[in-house]
Amino acid sequence: MGSSTLINADRLWTRLMALAEIGATPAGGVNRQALSDGEIAAWRRVIGWAREAGLTPSTDAAGNLFLTLAGRDGAASPVLLGSHLDSQPTGGKFDGAAGVMAALEAAVSLAEQSDRPARDVIVVAWMNEEGSRFAPGMMGSEAFTGERNMDAIRAARDADGISVGEALDRLHQPFPDVPHRPLGFAAGAYLELHIEQGPLLEAADCAIGVVTGIQGKKTFQVVVEGAEGHAGTLAQQERRDALAAFARMASALHAEIGTVDADIKFTIGRVAVVPNAPSVVPSRVSFSIDLRHPDNAVLDAAGARIAALCQQNAAPCAVTVTPLVDAPSNAFDPRLRASIAEAAREQGHSAMEILSAAGHDARHLAKICPAAMIFIPCRDGASHVEHEWAEPDHVAAGASVLAQVLRELAFAPGIAV
Amino acid sequence: MGSSTLINADRLWTRLMALAEIGATPAGGVNRQALSDGEIAAWRRVIGWAREAGLTPSTDAAGNLFLTLAGRDGAASPVLLGSHLDSQPTGGKFDGAAGVMAALEAAVSLAEQSDRPARDVIVVAWMNEEGSRFAPGMMGSEAFTGERNMDAIRAARDADGISVGEALDRLHQPFPDVPHRPLGFAAGAYLELHIEQGPLLEAADCAIGVVTGIQGKKTFQVVVEGAEGHAGTLAQQERRDALAAFARMASALHAEIGTVDADIKFTIGRVAVVPNAPSVVPSRVSFSIDLRHPDNAVLDAAGARIAALCQQNAAPCAVTVTPLVDAPSNAFDPRLRASIAEAAREQGHSAMEILSAAGHDARHLAKICPAAMIFIPCRDGASHVEHEWAEPDHVAAGASVLAQVLRELAFAPGIAV
Repeated sequence: MGSSTLINADRLWTRLMALAEIGATPAGGVNRQALSDGEIAAWRRVIGWAREAGLTPSTDAAGNLFLTLAGRDGAASPVLLGSHLDSQPTGGKFDGAAGVMAALEAAVSLAEQSDRPARDVIVVAWMNEEGSRFAPGMMGSEAFTGERNMDAIRAARDADGISVGEALDRLHQPFPDVPHRPLGFAAGAYLELHIEQGPLLEAADCAIGVVTGIQGKKTFQVVVEGAEGHAGTLAQQERRDALAAFARMASALHAEIGTVDADIKFTIGRVAVVPNAPSVVPSRVSFSIDLRHPDNAVLDAAGARIAALCQQNAAPCAVTVTPLVDAPSNAFDPRLRASIAEAAREQGHSAMEILSAAGHDARHLAKICPAAMIFIPCRDGASHVEHEWAEPDHVAAGASVLAQVLRELAFAPGIAV
Repeated sequence: MGSSTLINADRLWTRLMALAEIGATPAGGVNRQALSDGEIAAWRRVIGWAREAGLTPSTDAAGNLFLTLAGRDGAASPVLLGSHLDSQPTGGKFDGAAGVMAALEAAVSLAEQSDRPARDVIVVAWMNEEGSRFAPGMMGSEAFTGERNMDAIRAARDADGISVGEALDRLHQPFPDVPHRPLGFAAGAYLELHIEQGPLLEAADCAIGVVTGIQGKKTFQVVVEGAEGHAGTLAQQERRDALAAFARMASALHAEIGTVDADIKFTIGRVAVVPNAPSVVPSRVSFSIDLRHPDNAVLDAAGARIAALCQQNAAPCAVTVTPLVDAPSNAFDPRLRASIAEAAREQGHSAMEILSAAGHDARHLAKICPAAMIFIPCRDGASHVEHEWAEPDHVAAGASVLAQVLRELAFAPGIAV
């Protein structure tokens, strides 16, 4: 079974590039913030393509977009597949969009080439995966799976003070003919294609990544409180220098948490110093911690040491450590992983198992149904940058593997998997 | 000799508070940037008060303001005394202004109460001591003493791109009747009154600080260059994490330079992280170092270790250490210090010797003539803050001591000291 028979690779690439014109940046990237005019324009274009093929759009209270290819048995649990349409502020053409467009192409090709599937096939674009306009990210999939309630989601505000609630109402307003469905439904399976956002597939010259799972992640916000003072007059022994305490903490954290084993990822990425003037002893330093590991036991053990290491190095300052994200590792469904590997083999694409270091909406879907992901390579492993790039052949290969697994699920008798 | 006989304390306080209305902030402080409309307004007010008493204003190419009480012998080297009128953005009513107004009060009282002095008495307000609008500070006194040339000074620009040259021309424009004098002249002596900006006089319940000198200061700018990466995907052993390297450097610097002895002052006050996002391994950290010590040998030895400590902790990142300021400690003139102490004793004010931890224009004047400083207490040692405060009694005491030393110098035969 060759990839040319399952999807129209040229149409997919042409549409993906057309989508990238919405929110295009001068440097060749994409800035398409969640619930922005750009996302509304993307909805309009994607809905148009879906309707041409007979797919029916719908949405929900969380601003997720669904495009349904109706199956013969409306009572059977549907196959769900997709990704997201929002981007980072200086993002690229592929992160998110490639997964939605590959899913749409797989569904459209299925509609064109096959009998009506046994069950509904639903392409989805989740709301605010990136979290760059409204924090935290993955709001759409969290609302869908019941991880987060809509009151909390609607209350989050962007830098201009606009709430998600206001922005959601504004998103829905220009689509009066797109019906609303209840939040969440029983899905039979979930599939997501995404660029790897790392260098492993490219380094291995491999077209398809069979994603084994998503590594666990914990994040923390740490605030060190000292006292301001004149750099020339305040005696060293009387200082409560928040920067000096931060330096000790960060040094100890990097040395002790950052060296747990070869799989640990420990990052202090954001630091804010107050008042941040050369001749003033800093009164306050706040910083972020991002900790990831594929083994939940290791992740938990490392995470549990963070507050103590901060406390041990704080004196004479005070420190508070606030956990923000606690997302354990998950393993994707073994049968779906096997189907992806088998489809790649049949189509003649090199494939390898790969762990996702970054988070994806599939993490949440995996809690309510069998789920899996397909990775394709991206140049230099670069993502969240304007020069982010995936080769057309890799996009086509990934979409074709997705299409093959979709067909197995869509025509399977009974529950999809 | 009581202080009430040498100056008019009420007039001094009233004028100092009137001056504080120019650039007053809602929180009770002062924002009067160098060469701003506020400084022009302050010039207008101060020149008016000086002319009432028969003092003659003049200026120079560096925007220093001189108010001359003419002496009998125009060829004798004048006594120079003053401070500065510019402030920090959230500064107070006293830093700089108290010294100019005390000098003006001493000169005006001298004009009112005495015969014509033997030599010229010149009150000065130096241009841009603070360095908050245009960096570096002390431009006026550095230009006057030949430390820095006017081309370099005129080229410096503020955050809006306005050059010192443009701002100087704008300062001089509304004062066509204030003549220009050549830059620099032979001064017989220089006196400067200032709030302490530290807690020592207040803690000792002492009205007058006889300043022994200004401690030496070195500053550095350090840049750590690493490589950006995804916090979830980039393996720890492949990272060139600029923040991790900075943490090691800052920790080592605080531990080894910050503990040299009880007199060392070591501060990392400003840190900039690039790109400063929670999920991105930092590619670049730049930070400031402020190092001070009264003993030049200790200061030099500590300063010489900084680059090595940075280098030792940089790998696998690169680091560059750029020296910015190298101002050795100075000792003020022993005879002037003795005169200040004696005046305080005669007037019944408690006095103590004190080292200035902060820099002042007197540092530069001390290179060309005998110079000394008088400190007065400030509440809680707080300065460069809007609640900066000096008690009226302390302002009067300091000005009266200044006035007494001024009279000794102004009527001394031959060279002033």
